[in-house]
Amino acid sequence: MTNRLTVTYRIRASAATIAARAQSVAVEQSVEMPIEAITDETVLRDIVGQVQDIVDRGDGSFSVQIGLALVTIGTDAGQLFNMLFGNVSLQDDITLEDVAITPALTEIFTGPNIGMDALRDRVGAAGRAFTCSAIKPQGLPIAGLADLAARFAEGGLDFIKDDHGMANQTDGRFADRVPAIAAAIRATRSATSYVPSLSGDLDAMRAQMRIASDCGLEAVIIAPMLAGFSTMQTLVRENPRMAFFAHPTLGGAARIAPDLLIGKLFRLLGADAVIFPNHGGRFGYAPATCAQLAANATAPDPVLRRAIPVPAGGMVLARVGEMLDFYGREVMVLIGGNLLLARDRLAAASAEFTHAVAQHSYR
Amino acid sequence: MTNRLTVTYRIRASAATIAARAQSVAVEQSVEMPIEAITDETVLRDIVGQVQDIVDRGDGSFSVQIGLALVTIGTDAGQLFNMLFGNVSLQDDITLEDVAITPALTEIFTGPNIGMDALRDRVGAAGRAFTCSAIKPQGLPIAGLADLAARFAEGGLDFIKDDHGMANQTDGRFADRVPAIAAAIRATRSATSYVPSLSGDLDAMRAQMRIASDCGLEAVIIAPMLAGFSTMQTLVRENPRMAFFAHPTLGGAARIAPDLLIGKLFRLLGADAVIFPNHGGRFGYAPATCAQLAANATAPDPVLRRAIPVPAGGMVLARVGEMLDFYGREVMVLIGGNLLLARDRLAAASAEFTHAVAQHSYR
Repeated sequence: MTNRLTVTYRIRASAATIAARAQSVAVEQSVEMPIEAITDETVLRDIVGQVQDIVDRGDGSFSVQIGLALVTIGTDAGQLFNMLFGNVSLQDDITLEDVAITPALTEIFTGPNIGMDALRDRVGAAGRAFTCSAIKPQGLPIAGLADLAARFAEGGLDFIKDDHGMANQTDGRFADRVPAIAAAIRATRSATSYVPSLSGDLDAMRAQMRIASDCGLEAVIIAPMLAGFSTMQTLVRENPRMAFFAHPTLGGAARIAPDLLIGKLFRLLGADAVIFPNHGGRFGYAPATCAQLAANATAPDPVLRRAIPVPAGGMVLARVGEMLDFYGREVMVLIGGNLLLARDRLAAASAEFTHAVAQHSYR
Repeated sequence: MTNRLTVTYRIRASAATIAARAQSVAVEQSVEMPIEAITDETVLRDIVGQVQDIVDRGDGSFSVQIGLALVTIGTDAGQLFNMLFGNVSLQDDITLEDVAITPALTEIFTGPNIGMDALRDRVGAAGRAFTCSAIKPQGLPIAGLADLAARFAEGGLDFIKDDHGMANQTDGRFADRVPAIAAAIRATRSATSYVPSLSGDLDAMRAQMRIASDCGLEAVIIAPMLAGFSTMQTLVRENPRMAFFAHPTLGGAARIAPDLLIGKLFRLLGADAVIFPNHGGRFGYAPATCAQLAANATAPDPVLRRAIPVPAGGMVLARVGEMLDFYGREVMVLIGGNLLLARDRLAAASAEFTHAVAQHSYR
């Protein structure tokens, strides 16, 4: 089964419901549509996720192993996370627990450029643990940060990293800060390695990498949850002599209120339409959450254009009227799999959908 | 207070502890170090987060408003999320609830390029809700997807989006898929707008945007949690005539087991060192979780170089021996704020730290 990746989820369920729930996860994380609407034999055989094992953990939850087709992942790190946990991360009965790291996977994602053992040689940390500290606070003038770094270096630390809050703010630009700190450490003649923090988009991070290299630095720190997984993947690939530290910041995004994250912040970033799991569908948002999310997306603002709320996730034709009663005109109705169920009547079913929306009597 | 952004958190706490807990959040999301170690008056006045309000919600939790300095955010979307919820997302008593969208903020982050009202004009959806569907499954040959799209278009849908699982996989490359689907829709002479899904890094997404533009498309879909916030910000800025749909995939990343996310997946992506909240520090990971995370980061693998576990988050000099007993040599000890407390004895304290590690008797 080298063409599949075995992924383990922990799912809260009863013995009576777990088989169906496991199958629903296998579908959600692969084709995301009703199986019975799929006619292509290759898709059914090679693409749809497969439930491989279900084990009762005896605490009201089950360990479920699902085989995901490697071809759905391809070679992109963002898509890896998307297939592992993308949609089901929005369901509250499930945790992504494990992924089997197989040769087929490590042929695509090749891990650290340098790794612990060579880093041990680099900094002279044979036979012992490594040491590290961080310079902060952000907002301190660069000379102050450089002085802190020099003193850490005098103390013989292996690594000194930027605080992860130090980005490229006006009062501490990377291009000004990093050379000054690197020089301060170098002046101590210690073996200390400085690890500046990357921020911004790929262009910005590439420019920062060049500055770090020009300063003779051999390590940087990046926050994968902020940078984007593909961004990190590319930088790692482009800089084979550079070591990468990963910062866990924002590793707990599930606990951002969805009406804020999706309705307000994604709009703030420039989303013209924000898709979210409607109540009564495959996901767990309450009606009040959905209403607030839509209100946030559409509230007038002196600067921000209004965004379209797009409730989705298992919507069906029969719900169009109720959804329009709930959201009014300021919404986009998104129906996916339910329309596809019509198969050779797809155009007609789509027309029923468009007519239902066109002819609705808005309250 | 236009130089501060008011952020609302919901925190589970008792009446006796909430004031101190609120203050700890204000510090964590700004300077991330002991206040008493800060000598710079400007930092204390203008950078450190300020608790602005605490309201008892009567359910064992409190609404806490904290004013974060806008200067710590700068102009980067990734840094915005970092300051809003980065580190405290890793603490399990707190939810990010709201952010006040002020003129100072919308001067930096300007929201949708197009917005609902103009999109209504574009697709001719005056006085009614929008309609949308998705083409899938991934793995279906392109001709099959194009045929589905044409049938949706014949049904008069406003928008047809790619399934978010459709990335740039071998059997459905964006450059092949999108022109074919766009042409199929155009041939129906409907007003339907096709919304292809972006994936990969910034370079890849830019290339996809050019293809979409060349096809005459006016909207794309992006997953901010996958793409990285800064990536989305840049694309929005560079393509002022393009509408962006936001997909919520991976919005629930907190429920990825940390030993997997940090110990295994970040390593897989290329992290040479993975920082994580050690047990007994400011965050809630159990000792067993930390041990497993470290084991995952350091397990031998035929391809992946081993990564260094870096337990952190409120570590102190006095714990060095215990940490080394727990993790052994295969670790990097990261002590930040506690060393900075030494102030003018910083080099000496650092030396104590390095000596403690160098002289430890590993079990």
